[in-house]
Amino acid sequence: MNDQDFLAALAAVVGPTQVLTDPADTAPYLTDWRGRYTGTARAVVRPGSTGEVADIAKLCTVHGVAMVPQGGNTGLCGGATPDSSGAALVVNLSRMNRIRRIDPANLALVAEAGCTLASIQEAAREAGCLFPLSLASEGTCEIGGNLSTNAGGVQVLRYGNTRELTLGLEVVLPDGRIWNGLRALRKDNTGYDLKHLFVGAEGTLGFITAAALKLFPLPRAAVTTWLAVPDPAAAVRLLSRAQQRLGARVTAFELVSRVCLELVLRHIPNTRDPLAESSSSPWYVLLEASDGGSEEALMAEVEALLEAALEAGEASDGAIAQSGDQARQLWALRENISEAQKIDGISIKHDISLPVSAIPGFLDAAGEELARAFPGVRIVAFGHLGDGNLHYNLSKPEAQANAVFIDSQPEANRLVHDRVVALEGSISAEHGLGQLKREEIRRYKSAVELDLMRAVKAAIDPAGLMNPGKVL
Amino acid sequence: MNDQDFLAALAAVVGPTQVLTDPADTAPYLTDWRGRYTGTARAVVRPGSTGEVADIAKLCTVHGVAMVPQGGNTGLCGGATPDSSGAALVVNLSRMNRIRRIDPANLALVAEAGCTLASIQEAAREAGCLFPLSLASEGTCEIGGNLSTNAGGVQVLRYGNTRELTLGLEVVLPDGRIWNGLRALRKDNTGYDLKHLFVGAEGTLGFITAAALKLFPLPRAAVTTWLAVPDPAAAVRLLSRAQQRLGARVTAFELVSRVCLELVLRHIPNTRDPLAESSSSPWYVLLEASDGGSEEALMAEVEALLEAALEAGEASDGAIAQSGDQARQLWALRENISEAQKIDGISIKHDISLPVSAIPGFLDAAGEELARAFPGVRIVAFGHLGDGNLHYNLSKPEAQANAVFIDSQPEANRLVHDRVVALEGSISAEHGLGQLKREEIRRYKSAVELDLMRAVKAAIDPAGLMNPGKVL
Repeated sequence: MNDQDFLAALAAVVGPTQVLTDPADTAPYLTDWRGRYTGTARAVVRPGSTGEVADIAKLCTVHGVAMVPQGGNTGLCGGATPDSSGAALVVNLSRMNRIRRIDPANLALVAEAGCTLASIQEAAREAGCLFPLSLASEGTCEIGGNLSTNAGGVQVLRYGNTRELTLGLEVVLPDGRIWNGLRALRKDNTGYDLKHLFVGAEGTLGFITAAALKLFPLPRAAVTTWLAVPDPAAAVRLLSRAQQRLGARVTAFELVSRVCLELVLRHIPNTRDPLAESSSSPWYVLLEASDGGSEEALMAEVEALLEAALEAGEASDGAIAQSGDQARQLWALRENISEAQKIDGISIKHDISLPVSAIPGFLDAAGEELARAFPGVRIVAFGHLGDGNLHYNLSKPEAQANAVFIDSQPEANRLVHDRVVALEGSISAEHGLGQLKREEIRRYKSAVELDLMRAVKAAIDPAGLMNPGKVL
Repeated sequence: MNDQDFLAALAAVVGPTQVLTDPADTAPYLTDWRGRYTGTARAVVRPGSTGEVADIAKLCTVHGVAMVPQGGNTGLCGGATPDSSGAALVVNLSRMNRIRRIDPANLALVAEAGCTLASIQEAAREAGCLFPLSLASEGTCEIGGNLSTNAGGVQVLRYGNTRELTLGLEVVLPDGRIWNGLRALRKDNTGYDLKHLFVGAEGTLGFITAAALKLFPLPRAAVTTWLAVPDPAAAVRLLSRAQQRLGARVTAFELVSRVCLELVLRHIPNTRDPLAESSSSPWYVLLEASDGGSEEALMAEVEALLEAALEAGEASDGAIAQSGDQARQLWALRENISEAQKIDGISIKHDISLPVSAIPGFLDAAGEELARAFPGVRIVAFGHLGDGNLHYNLSKPEAQANAVFIDSQPEANRLVHDRVVALEGSISAEHGLGQLKREEIRRYKSAVELDLMRAVKAAIDPAGLMNPGKVL
């Protein structure tokens, strides 16, 4: 079958308007969100149903055509961008955007892969429930991509990663068979838990076409605080204290360095230091608590916590938001760090995780090593301390020096990643591997682990047609 | 290599006293806890370290000897009992019983497979933390078995199954290679999440030799209540209300029918109806809440919840334990149901799960169908309503009629399981498949799902030496 016939066969499946080949039409699907990777493809196809995805996969398997699953195309590691061979077919699932059902009494819903994260949050809210996954790109990213990259975000501490929010999946296998694993059960011990193979596999094992997802009761009260802490070790102690007193009501615990805060204050309009009257602190914590009771009761609990933390020297000062507006202002300080840094100049980024207890030691040791190796380096460290997840970005404040420094990315990555792995951490906490870290991970995973991954890949995708060049 | 040489090679690995062949020594390892299955084995070997397990697996792979991993041997489905061929080697991991480390600031510990569940709970408690997995057999069952069967228990609603409590694993693969996946991280998106393959695999993919497990802050306050509810639909509404108000502070929500309660009151000494003064109710709920604050504050919240539930007609009466002793008395009513039923006579048991919202309809419909098919049948229904998990046991009250009824097990199973699966439930919620449900599951799993399971099995255990005859 020549290329024309293959495209005609695709058009017969999805309709001719859903097979894109004109470069003007395909361009948005061939470059990743960061603009770091651009590939080429035989075509971009936009199926509207699970059956259509299955038929596409069958056609591709028969003709040996590689498939690149794609959702909102907001990934940070190039996992949804085809390679430059032009051999692959991009299969974009954005048209599969129905909430198939919602069951508040079972705290679950079933969403198709192309639903944006925001649309799922909204559907849950309309049913009086919470879907807690929340990320910067939630208006655009799609749940299929969130599942394939096991996305994290700011509420993992309380509700878990996307993996933990998944009850069941519907998957189109590389050969076009459909696995209906959409069970919305809290307990099911009838053999291997196959859904966990596909979550986080970045499209290398099949197409996730729908998912049964966990919902939670909608919190009625939330209290947001911004605390000055003397150092990361104090922040870790404060985290323990908060969890002991408030348990799962601690929904976010974010660490922010003074360097981060200053970047935000400098570059983002309408921001101010919440503790302006006090002396500045090298580190801050944004702590959010929420529950289903009254605002006053929760506020009293948080105030008691802060009092104890101040007394124990775990915090030196703090501000509690007294309104939703104030809470949003505090969150803006955390959420604009990446944007502020982007405005300030490019940087060498890391998305790392460590045992929470290892974070203070890591920050000390990596900071010293980097200062020795790259004098004048500026470290922008922030992240989800409660999950042991840091975004750890490096740059030099002065533009010309930074341009030179950026060329040291391989050495800087090596230094940071070596230390992370020595402390039994991970070099990709929540973004995945994609193309970006596919080579890097070979340095850190054991041969046994890589072999196991390859054995799984060969078992599920023996022809190697799913998203080649990613992960493995 | 003949059998003598093989045993000598094993003895060279573990020492001669740890290779058992005398029937008097091996007997306890060859029959399951319920006494339902008895197998035979070439020998029972008791390794003391991961390295020894690896050497045993290498020997077995070279000589084509099947391996049956075993822990505390308390499983309910015969998953740790060898078949009757006498060809297999039972590998009992009970000697591997060290807590390797504990890290309260990271809320994690690393335990070897042979640690009893109680010993892990105790180690956590000594460090000021909670390991929440809790089951009737906790003094004897071992964490390797809990992991391999993805054990549930009474706190799943709040803390999840064993799977959700697992951060990382150390596994000896069938060919003797060791996979060190003992990362104690909350976030790690570096490829396929292999640990989920081995959790719940019932020893058919390899030996779990150690695990990094999640800990939680130790709750300081707990409130236990016993509520009369008019019917299961009201219990489901009450569950929603409780979760909305108390969120994750609801740590147990157990449904108990009047039939269950009467069995306990009849057969278990020192038990009494907590609502004796009131009229009896067809259904009860045992609700437990816990958190890290004061007992008084939590009690006030639970009282407010009960008041609202009484007003809404979701409960008709209730008792709140005023002391630890009273709480234990309420729990004894729930925990002795199986024991009371055993004393009363044998029964046909089911361990099923359903979407929580489907449970009232299931109880109605299955109850009617069973009464039609088996007039006079007594249904003993109880379980973890919050997880959608019911233990649903059938018998006839009169001994002679029961003896006849028990012969209808295949028909009764079929009727119950068909209805469960029609409602998208599971026929094994927390006990696993083992030998008991290995055939039954073929009726309910799709061909695609069984194929995927077989592909995974072939990829990880190509020689088919791990625990043959179980699961698949």
